[in-house]
Amino acid sequence: MLKHLDSVREKKPLVHHITNWVTIQDCARITRAFGALPVMAHAPEEAAAMTGLASSLVLNIGTLTKGIVESMIIAGAEANRRGIPVVFDAVGVGATPFRDEKAAEILDKVDVAIVKGNRSEIARLAGEQVVTRGVEAVDTNRDDSENARLLAGLTSGVVVITGEIDIVTDGLRLAYIRNGHPLMGSLVGTGCMAASVLGAFAGAHDDYFEASVAGLVSYEVAGEIAASQAKGPGSFAEELHDAVYGLDTATVERMARVDLAAS
Amino acid sequence: MLKHLDSVREKKPLVHHITNWVTIQDCARITRAFGALPVMAHAPEEAAAMTGLASSLVLNIGTLTKGIVESMIIAGAEANRRGIPVVFDAVGVGATPFRDEKAAEILDKVDVAIVKGNRSEIARLAGEQVVTRGVEAVDTNRDDSENARLLAGLTSGVVVITGEIDIVTDGLRLAYIRNGHPLMGSLVGTGCMAASVLGAFAGAHDDYFEASVAGLVSYEVAGEIAASQAKGPGSFAEELHDAVYGLDTATVERMARVDLAAS
Amino acid sequence: MLKHLDSVREKKPLVHHITNWVTIQDCARITRAFGALPVMAHAPEEAAAMTGLASSLVLNIGTLTKGIVESMIIAGAEANRRGIPVVFDAVGVGATPFRDEKAAEILDKVDVAIVKGNRSEIARLAGEQVVTRGVEAVDTNRDDSENARLLAGLTSGVVVITGEIDIVTDGLRLAYIRNGHPLMGSLVGTGCMAASVLGAFAGAHDDYFEASVAGLVSYEVAGEIAASQAKGPGSFAEELHDAVYGLDTATVERMARVDLAAS
Repeated sequence: MLKHLDSVREKKPLVHHITNWVTIQDCARITRAFGALPVMAHAPEEAAAMTGLASSLVLNIGTLTKGIVESMIIAGAEANRRGIPVVFDAVGVGATPFRDEKAAEILDKVDVAIVKGNRSEIARLAGEQVVTRGVEAVDTNRDDSENARLLAGLTSGVVVITGEIDIVTDGLRLAYIRNGHPLMGSLVGTGCMAASVLGAFAGAHDDYFEASVAGLVSYEVAGEIAASQAKGPGSFAEELHDAVYGLDTATVERMARVDLAAS
Repeated sequence: MLKHLDSVREKKPLVHHITNWVTIQDCARITRAFGALPVMAHAPEEAAAMTGLASSLVLNIGTLTKGIVESMIIAGAEANRRGIPVVFDAVGVGATPFRDEKAAEILDKVDVAIVKGNRSEIARLAGEQVVTRGVEAVDTNRDDSENARLLAGLTSGVVVITGEIDIVTDGLRLAYIRNGHPLMGSLVGTGCMAASVLGAFAGAHDDYFEASVAGLVSYEVAGEIAASQAKGPGSFAEELHDAVYGLDTATVERMARVDLAAS
Repeated sequence: MLKHLDSVREKKPLVHHITNWVTIQDCARITRAFGALPVMAHAPEEAAAMTGLASSLVLNIGTLTKGIVESMIIAGAEANRRGIPVVFDAVGVGATPFRDEKAAEILDKVDVAIVKGNRSEIARLAGEQVVTRGVEAVDTNRDDSENARLLAGLTSGVVVITGEIDIVTDGLRLAYIRNGHPLMGSLVGTGCMAASVLGAFAGAHDDYFEASVAGLVSYEVAGEIAASQAKGPGSFAEELHDAVYGLDTATVERMARVDLAAS
């Protein structure tokens, strides 16, 4: 399952992003460091045409506006028509009613292959009344894996919760990923980059559950390698891109800490 | 006065930014490196709701548009209603009439706790007819501290002039900060990041004059530490985030070069 | 011809950019690292006024919208009126009809001094029916230098094709630049930064062919120096800014690999 890093490098999937202002450079760079090709284009007049060239579509609502969400829905419709996977990063859902409404609209109008969020974002999408504090996770009532499974049932797709232990489920299969490092939480952008990684791997491999697990494990193994060289978030950011660039499947397989279970 | 770094790390204030495209990632990262939580959201539909969760609001007009300024005013009104501090970074004021008008509109409609700018931006806001060259400071007629005091009188708040020697005044108290390093001037984004630092410290401590002094000194001491490890603006950027992340109050107090005076 | 680095540092040209969300920070930073002054401002209400202060204008359509292109045309008209050079970076031309139309509109309404693109973007502008894959170059039918000459004839200006070997021509003179390093292609943003470099050099020297050659050689020599210190795109990004900052004319002249020919 963890060999999909090689597929990304061989197939070089074009990953169309419609994403936020804050981490857009990070997202483009990590996509490229993995060997895939990023393209960012949000004008409604070209959103569908750009998705028409792509192998996957990443939608991230970090700095959403009404206009940007319209472009996301146009691009999402084209992705659905062509059968390429859509990754939805539910940044800040639960923080404001506007985010909740727009996230619901996207999930209603676009068939999303992978929904990604932190524990409280996913809890909110699964129906809990949690209030996300800006873009930070807060405590939830239900168990994380229960929320992930609930949402996977609603979307008929894969759900990814990122955190100290990541959860990936498609409703049938469930994986706990114990890789990663606390410095990833200290660097703005690591969450958004994870969605780009999901886009790159899902653009190269049709089983989106496997692609999600392989992508996250690869990314977080790189995070561990980077952290071992870093003294803070500044050097960590640099080392992370280098570690992704220099990563090989043998290293991923040796360092992976994944528990697979029936959901 | 310089212990407020600890308050930032304990209270983890949520700092809502409505800011520019160029340095938005820098601003988010430095806020996080100091231990506060950044959130960026500019849609008019959620600007007030996001400010409603925050401990402070940072408005930066670096790449302003009419629509963005409308969102700033909505968010500013909510900040005023809730009594949380608003930091206004007057980027490029004096360069174009549009910037002058919009800055005046923001200061008219929002009660701003801290206005920050370089010497010519503050001179312009204090009534001088200087023309800022893009976003760079130019020479002014009046003395910088006089302009700062004048503007503090107009806004009934704190005014910060950044430069080789920073000036902080609330009209009564005045501080000269001699920390910092020339490399800070060679790296795009250090000015914008300073406003984020002011937002983080003002979000954690109610005396905004003290918060401003403590924030700037901490940031610039980190700049000195970073510069000692750097060979240019690339490595300086990385070292700056690491130095902020690893900073402690004892170091800030040992390295601080602040002169306090009655205004 | 290669001494223009000194002119940039002495004259500190203000380079007004209207550019994309992804690499806007990179563009500002590299401009500053070369010693020029970047300013980014895209509101239609101030686009002309900001260009009115500048020594050159850089237009980059990486994340174009209808509104942004309107601001580009306003700024371009002011640049033409004042006789300062306009650099047009044709990012992603050939990927969507919208990009093709807007690029044609810009070239129709603005007198562009330097058009820059990769081989397929320039081929498209020169009339070939290539489809750019996102923002990546694809193979073309005609020879690159033929396409560059054709386009230089259409724009009566300089055309730059970036790639393993860069081509610069004004229709009469032709230069092949063999500097650079593969890591430049692995880092998102190096192409956009090249356009900023062209803006900085053209803002400091009136012969735009010479300015383009000198700018690209300087930038790519810095890329070679940076690559010798880097282990991946993360460290390369940092080293690149440091290398540009520390660059001197003697090093550029020693390391330059340029072939000049009559076109």
